[in-house]
Amino acid sequence: MRKFPDLRYLFEPRSVAVIGASRNPEKIGYRILSNIIHGGYGGEVYPVNVKGGEILGKKVYRSIEEIDNEIDLSIIAIPAPYVYDAVKSCASANVKFIIIITSGFSEIGNRKEEEKIVEFARSHGMRILGPNVFGLYSANASLNASFGPSDIMPGKIAIISQSGALGGAMIGKSAADGIGLSAIVSVGNKADLDEADLLEYFRKDKRTRVVLMYIEGVKNGEKLIKSLKAMPKDKHVVVIKSGRSKRGALAAASHTGSLAGSDEVFDGVADQCRILRAESIEEAFNWCRVLANSPIPKGDNSVIITNGGGFGVMCADACEKYNVPLLGDTNLLKKIFKDVIPEFGSFKNPIDLTGQAGPKEYMLSLEKALKTRDIDSVLALYCETGIFDSSFIRDVIVKITEEYRGKKPILFSTLGGEDMGKIVADLRKKGILIFDDVYDAASGMGALYRRKMYIEEMEHEEPAPPIEFDTEAIREIISSALKEGRTLLLANEAKKLMELVGIPVPEWRVARNLDEAIRFSEEIGYPVVLKVVSEDIVHKTDAGGVALNIEDREEVIDAYQAIMRNCKSRFPRARIRGVEVCKMVPKGIETITGCTTDRSFGPVVMFGLGGIYVEILKDVSFRAVPITLTDAKKMVRSIKSYPLLLGARGEKKRDIPAIIDTLLKLSKLMETVREISDIEINPLMVYEHGSGVMAVDVRVILGRRESP
Amino acid sequence: MRKFPDLRYLFEPRSVAVIGASRNPEKIGYRILSNIIHGGYGGEVYPVNVKGGEILGKKVYRSIEEIDNEIDLSIIAIPAPYVYDAVKSCASANVKFIIIITSGFSEIGNRKEEEKIVEFARSHGMRILGPNVFGLYSANASLNASFGPSDIMPGKIAIISQSGALGGAMIGKSAADGIGLSAIVSVGNKADLDEADLLEYFRKDKRTRVVLMYIEGVKNGEKLIKSLKAMPKDKHVVVIKSGRSKRGALAAASHTGSLAGSDEVFDGVADQCRILRAESIEEAFNWCRVLANSPIPKGDNSVIITNGGGFGVMCADACEKYNVPLLGDTNLLKKIFKDVIPEFGSFKNPIDLTGQAGPKEYMLSLEKALKTRDIDSVLALYCETGIFDSSFIRDVIVKITEEYRGKKPILFSTLGGEDMGKIVADLRKKGILIFDDVYDAASGMGALYRRKMYIEEMEHEEPAPPIEFDTEAIREIISSALKEGRTLLLANEAKKLMELVGIPVPEWRVARNLDEAIRFSEEIGYPVVLKVVSEDIVHKTDAGGVALNIEDREEVIDAYQAIMRNCKSRFPRARIRGVEVCKMVPKGIETITGCTTDRSFGPVVMFGLGGIYVEILKDVSFRAVPITLTDAKKMVRSIKSYPLLLGARGEKKRDIPAIIDTLLKLSKLMETVREISDIEINPLMVYEHGSGVMAVDVRVILGRRESP
Repeated sequence: MRKFPDLRYLFEPRSVAVIGASRNPEKIGYRILSNIIHGGYGGEVYPVNVKGGEILGKKVYRSIEEIDNEIDLSIIAIPAPYVYDAVKSCASANVKFIIIITSGFSEIGNRKEEEKIVEFARSHGMRILGPNVFGLYSANASLNASFGPSDIMPGKIAIISQSGALGGAMIGKSAADGIGLSAIVSVGNKADLDEADLLEYFRKDKRTRVVLMYIEGVKNGEKLIKSLKAMPKDKHVVVIKSGRSKRGALAAASHTGSLAGSDEVFDGVADQCRILRAESIEEAFNWCRVLANSPIPKGDNSVIITNGGGFGVMCADACEKYNVPLLGDTNLLKKIFKDVIPEFGSFKNPIDLTGQAGPKEYMLSLEKALKTRDIDSVLALYCETGIFDSSFIRDVIVKITEEYRGKKPILFSTLGGEDMGKIVADLRKKGILIFDDVYDAASGMGALYRRKMYIEEMEHEEPAPPIEFDTEAIREIISSALKEGRTLLLANEAKKLMELVGIPVPEWRVARNLDEAIRFSEEIGYPVVLKVVSEDIVHKTDAGGVALNIEDREEVIDAYQAIMRNCKSRFPRARIRGVEVCKMVPKGIETITGCTTDRSFGPVVMFGLGGIYVEILKDVSFRAVPITLTDAKKMVRSIKSYPLLLGARGEKKRDIPAIIDTLLKLSKLMETVREISDIEINPLMVYEHGSGVMAVDVRVILGRRESP
Repeated sequence: MRKFPDLRYLFEPRSVAVIGASRNPEKIGYRILSNIIHGGYGGEVYPVNVKGGEILGKKVYRSIEEIDNEIDLSIIAIPAPYVYDAVKSCASANVKFIIIITSGFSEIGNRKEEEKIVEFARSHGMRILGPNVFGLYSANASLNASFGPSDIMPGKIAIISQSGALGGAMIGKSAADGIGLSAIVSVGNKADLDEADLLEYFRKDKRTRVVLMYIEGVKNGEKLIKSLKAMPKDKHVVVIKSGRSKRGALAAASHTGSLAGSDEVFDGVADQCRILRAESIEEAFNWCRVLANSPIPKGDNSVIITNGGGFGVMCADACEKYNVPLLGDTNLLKKIFKDVIPEFGSFKNPIDLTGQAGPKEYMLSLEKALKTRDIDSVLALYCETGIFDSSFIRDVIVKITEEYRGKKPILFSTLGGEDMGKIVADLRKKGILIFDDVYDAASGMGALYRRKMYIEEMEHEEPAPPIEFDTEAIREIISSALKEGRTLLLANEAKKLMELVGIPVPEWRVARNLDEAIRFSEEIGYPVVLKVVSEDIVHKTDAGGVALNIEDREEVIDAYQAIMRNCKSRFPRARIRGVEVCKMVPKGIETITGCTTDRSFGPVVMFGLGGIYVEILKDVSFRAVPITLTDAKKMVRSIKSYPLLLGARGEKKRDIPAIIDTLLKLSKLMETVREISDIEINPLMVYEHGSGVMAVDVRVILGRRESP
């Protein structure tokens, strides 16, 4: 396999061929060619169509081989059955990148043909975008190689969309919203190039400041995580991951053929990669506008300035919802604003100028907020009052934005009639951060503060401490199980595995006869638990194979005999390997932790509180393997029942460092031993601070996974 | 006190006086007069100003007494110190309603003056709206008696705003959004008339279909609940209650002087009154538009039709979020849509027509959905594709809406460029239900379905069953406690009270000496709990005053003596009334229930699961007293941990009827015996279905409350 060409040739090609160029303005092959020609592209453009002739003043080549120039990018827009041959012809012309617009491949089950095409292309050093895409726009090359809208405003936001139709419509919306684009690409079936590959280009692209991704399903999550984590601090990523709901996921599957992993896992991964997950297009666009046009606030003192009390109250509510930290020092606020607040106004944050505030007071108060070092960001609200002609607000906003843009975040929100609506639409087009609703403005400010937090995290990221364990010994346990055809480890094997990794388990031995059971019980010390060891008996309690709280020798004898009798009578054919004698552990807070293999992101670690918390309240956090120390800490902190571990309700604080240690070890285990598909520790008993944790019950499932 | 005038004279006055009418166009007194005159009001208008003369062609009266006509409505817009005298002059002119625009009263602490004015007005048969308001608009009288915008579109939505500035700005926004108003009123300080009074008018007003309320704080919640519950099924109420957050509540307090009750209580009351609580103005306006312009769906089969797969996936997600029930029968969908779905389209809901769908396919599929009886509501999505000229969508939407308006809910959402934006804005003005984002459309559809559920609830409302108890006996316990200066009942008094109400408590007696303790223990049956009875020892466990799980006579003796020793040594001066002997109850699921007195809504009942559920996870439901059987059922159902009571994780179902019975009895108790301010039953042990509940620990706090 040859070295693949640099992505620059996809986004900044020197020459483009359009295979399937058409004379019919209703055809995609015409629209693409027309967009390229009229979009101001400076390179060479070659229409290709067997019919030959001329389109839009350009000579049409009958085949790509006829062109006597190197072709960096070839765009294929012909029916699916002819695509493979077209790709073959591209190889003879030394094409570097191919965009396959055509649909009708894996998204409708036609997986074989798609794989054949990709295999051929890759083995000839070519990369493919698509199939099933609307094309690509790249501001760096003034290249609009899409069949979407033709008027794209260049700017700082790159859009990667898995959905073609949605991506196309987003072009229009971005123009209407005054959002300038550095690029927009649809990845469709992701047969070859995927989001992660494209991120590589945007990571280095000077023009791009924010990347917006619309994702329905992730194919190679581990690769995506690596690309996202490699993004520098000053490039922000906003993602819409649809298919959150059951029906949405079904629809996504029939739409792009995506099989989505768990939505909770996606949330965890988003936090881990420090990207912002938006719910709706509206929210995503709002965040992108803010991130592209505002600096990150330097500190946590945000101030709301309003001429309408009620509007301010709502904004304060919204700030709480979106975690915007409001400055609360009333004395300081009084000092700053004392000259501008009228008689009935309020110095509390929100600063209420009242409806009496005219242009002068409004301007002055904004300037005071922006000039003082004590305030780090401003939410400026304006209600149309009927007292003042609202057109003044336009000038105030423009003047303030011009003067302070890039220095401090300032977001506006107004409420009023049609004229106000026109002002807002007009200012928005100028890249001014103005919003129809205070909730949108606060949400935008919240996005800035979340990125601020993430950037600080990146600056102080704590790596996982070095964890070492005897991998050979672990592999031995696994291979002996696999040799016996088992994918579920025996309880004692699982415990042994935990011991090897360094996760504490209650002291235990496997007794092969009654004498050993007695001896081990005395050695371990009462109370103990007896449990049958047999791969053929899954529900051991139901089978009468478990005896709890055994307190002395006599009870061991009774329990041992009862277990043997029960199991043999109920499962006469079961292979019984013995009885596990295990220390009965004291009660702590029951948590659940473990690992599973997500369809999208591969191995993930999970943590939550035991009992109903995980199953009913879904109070659980996930992160993809490998996790850092920072990740592990956040996993514990991010569950809603976290206060319980901190010692709510008068109880002592729990051993949180021991939980974190367990999570890090599980992550390392999953990373190193890829034969394991699932681990469940339920419960992981957590004791008071300093007293550690205990993995009481451990299940380990094997299942080979491909290395990424 | 005289009989008060009918609210018709406020909304449909035959004559209006403006006290403080001004010649200066910047003054409120000018704006109001001008709005009245230019708004098309048909009654008589009398400007009043000591300076006399003429304004806008009308003769100015020097005082209201000079006018030789009956005045139904008088609007006062003069500085606060002169308002009282103006109100007095209104009395001599037999004015029926007064709107006091002026601010500077209770909202800045000037409560006395406000009370004086109201008292005078009411004792002279006059009612006051305000002070601190922007006025009123009433479509029935073509009367714009506000200083807000002058161009108001008449329609079906009435707005009641506590915030003047916000209300004024909402007028503008309603016009821009194509929302027609039947009325808009600001209630400001609510010194006399409040939301509940105004609702009385809208309840009967034929024009009003939806009432939108902006509330910061509720003064007389019990009265508001009555008015809301009296609203007929075909009038919908949407409420924004701001001050959700701590800082928001603080801001509300300094803005309109409102002291908000608990936000969770407001949520419970909203559900109880079957009104829809919106978070933002955007959401509230969207819901109002939908409720005013769409029928309620007849059944639960909603269908999404889209030309963009990704847009459909997002809409499906949004439908799950907003509880829009999507039709899932793919065979049925195939039957309905088989003729219109192209090759690569999807029959699953969302119905995906793909980007290939042109005007004909789009129109046809909508018609199919709207014509069939199997579909009850439609979400129609359209992505601008670049293949078809999008202007066709305008005609499709207009035609479909014209034909099916009033028959079936159909909500549109589009995504596209500037031209599309213009189409949307234009259609919106025509009252067509079109939205910028699928989440907004789904939220609007969700509002329709929530009202559908509420209307069904109203039709099948189950009243509380008759509950009787010995009120005299309860009052005796209370008055003997009050006589001793106690506001906290002794544990045995609280238990007695529960017994009187019919809430099961573990069998118990108060032993005054050891002999009795032994005798009572034997009679009740082991195991028992012993607990000191003393109003002077609050933390009985800490004082060594409690002994659990006493299993025989010897243990009773030991425990009794230990309790006495501990308490006497630690609290030598405590009055010890004896030792409570109580049956030790078996373990069930621990719940917490009780009552408290909300600042806004008076007595409320609460229910939640014990332990961390209430305190940390805030998984608790409230309803205002009195509750119906329907309310009680919903209280239990609405907590997130409800599945636990249903028997999650292999456990047996719990005795939910016994919980409901307890809630109803508590409600009746709070309703009847208004001396009680708080009851806490923690835990209320809930046993398996059929085995009832047990109030293990009961605290009752007394505190006289005013009757409403």
